[in-house]
Amino acid sequence: MIIDKLIDAIKRTDNPSVIGLDTCLEYLPEDMLANVQNAKNAGEQIFEFNKNIVDKICDIVPAVKVQVAYYEMYGHEGMKAFADTIAYARSKGMLVIADVKRNDIGSTAGCYSKAYLSGTKVAGKVFTPFESEFITVNGYLGSDGILPFTKDCEEFEKGLFILVKTSNPTSGELQDKIMENGNTIYEEMSDLVSKWGESTIGKYGYSSVGAVVGATHRDQAAIIRKRAPHTFFLIPGYGAQGGKADDLAVCFTDGIGGIVNSSRGILCAYRNEKYAGLNYADAAYQASLDMRDDLNSAIKK
Amino acid sequence: MIIDKLIDAIKRTDNPSVIGLDTCLEYLPEDMLANVQNAKNAGEQIFEFNKNIVDKICDIVPAVKVQVAYYEMYGHEGMKAFADTIAYARSKGMLVIADVKRNDIGSTAGCYSKAYLSGTKVAGKVFTPFESEFITVNGYLGSDGILPFTKDCEEFEKGLFILVKTSNPTSGELQDKIMENGNTIYEEMSDLVSKWGESTIGKYGYSSVGAVVGATHRDQAAIIRKRAPHTFFLIPGYGAQGGKADDLAVCFTDGIGGIVNSSRGILCAYRNEKYAGLNYADAAYQASLDMRDDLNSAIKK
Repeated sequence: MIIDKLIDAIKRTDNPSVIGLDTCLEYLPEDMLANVQNAKNAGEQIFEFNKNIVDKICDIVPAVKVQVAYYEMYGHEGMKAFADTIAYARSKGMLVIADVKRNDIGSTAGCYSKAYLSGTKVAGKVFTPFESEFITVNGYLGSDGILPFTKDCEEFEKGLFILVKTSNPTSGELQDKIMENGNTIYEEMSDLVSKWGESTIGKYGYSSVGAVVGATHRDQAAIIRKRAPHTFFLIPGYGAQGGKADDLAVCFTDGIGGIVNSSRGILCAYRNEKYAGLNYADAAYQASLDMRDDLNSAIKK
Repeated sequence: MIIDKLIDAIKRTDNPSVIGLDTCLEYLPEDMLANVQNAKNAGEQIFEFNKNIVDKICDIVPAVKVQVAYYEMYGHEGMKAFADTIAYARSKGMLVIADVKRNDIGSTAGCYSKAYLSGTKVAGKVFTPFESEFITVNGYLGSDGILPFTKDCEEFEKGLFILVKTSNPTSGELQDKIMENGNTIYEEMSDLVSKWGESTIGKYGYSSVGAVVGATHRDQAAIIRKRAPHTFFLIPGYGAQGGKADDLAVCFTDGIGGIVNSSRGILCAYRNEKYAGLNYADAAYQASLDMRDDLNSAIKK
């Protein structure tokens, strides 16, 4: 089960965090930006930036989350940097969460699953262009949009994180609405996620089909944790979005239960006066250590 | 308003349909498939196939819908074919709906919007790698995940189709659930879509912010049509998925109100015995005419 490998990696590094490589040109230092004349250079420089960060953090951080929007905005050259970044992080032993929030009808979901989990056949050979350990998906379409992914998770030892309660300020507009049965929509989605994950529960009692639960909504996170004891959480919203370690501690039981993402706070640490004098990779390394300690102090107390 | 241009094009061609270029290798004729040795060739042959279909149908069909999953499964080379297909269809005067179902927090939604609607700045120049007239989005995250798109729709004369009631068999699992106020979730989503579209209502009374409403769910489509008189519908599910012209006629008022998608039914028409002896482009042309007549006979009666 891939969820066991993720939890093992979290235990080995004593670090329940994932670094978000949401790298856009604006995050690069000026000397790298000076090399960028077109989309191809942009992709190359973004990959170079990511590579240097991965080299620094790969022994102290278990996973990276790569947000595809930051690559897609540079076109197919950006998508090459996305593929290269994923492959490089995996080659350094990190687990990769491709943050793509895919969602569609069954036949189309099957195509997405080929791209990230199971592979596409071309001229008799199977290749998986953006192969990752986990991808994020949106469950609005219901089971037949999810089952092509869960089937591949079983067969290829992969995992999902399905949006349940997102970290953005207006996530409650739909997600917190109350049903006639008394549940909120995010609780209904949480129940679906539990059902979709029943066949991939590993040795720690967590499923390879997890949930996205924002650090910015403490009360809702506590409700979901109680309702879905076998669901592992991908927790965005820490740091730049305002989520605090004390808020997200409710997601953890005996020190496990989730992995917390930070993107801008790590990638742009070199612009933070706290890390003055460090280059971007060293600043990202130091900020990752500080995040680890901050999370552990809240989760383990 | 882009919605006016779409309705004008539907009127000009007397054709309320959009052809879905969901082209995968399995749809290509054997002589084209024989040219495919790797992902690069795969992308090139898929683009060639699309190009020949666009050349045939561009005067009789107002728009194409390009489903990104069928390109993403071939990696960044597939994404180049996606970009080339979109650009070619636009160069032939067709409107393009990029079917990407994007959804994320505001800052990330802004990146997606750059990729499709407003453009990314690289070395002082703005380029829009996958520029399209419309994209599909998923509203599960609420307003702050949608507003970056609607803002760009206003500024750059673009449009959206937001998932309301999808065509797949299990769409009701979440979407049909009933709220404590008596609405279904798809009705709540429909109300949000109406609100998001208020500022882009054009001369025909429809907004550039439309809804995805499946042809396979007639009763729900009728409810949404009544509830959201200013919302234009993108209607998938006709043909291969089982939706019939008579079922989707409820989406139209005085002959306008939606655009109906067919993908496999057109792309693979050359394998249908009805079109025996025609090459794939001629079969697609004939199947498009037949679809147009079938739709009009139901919509206009």
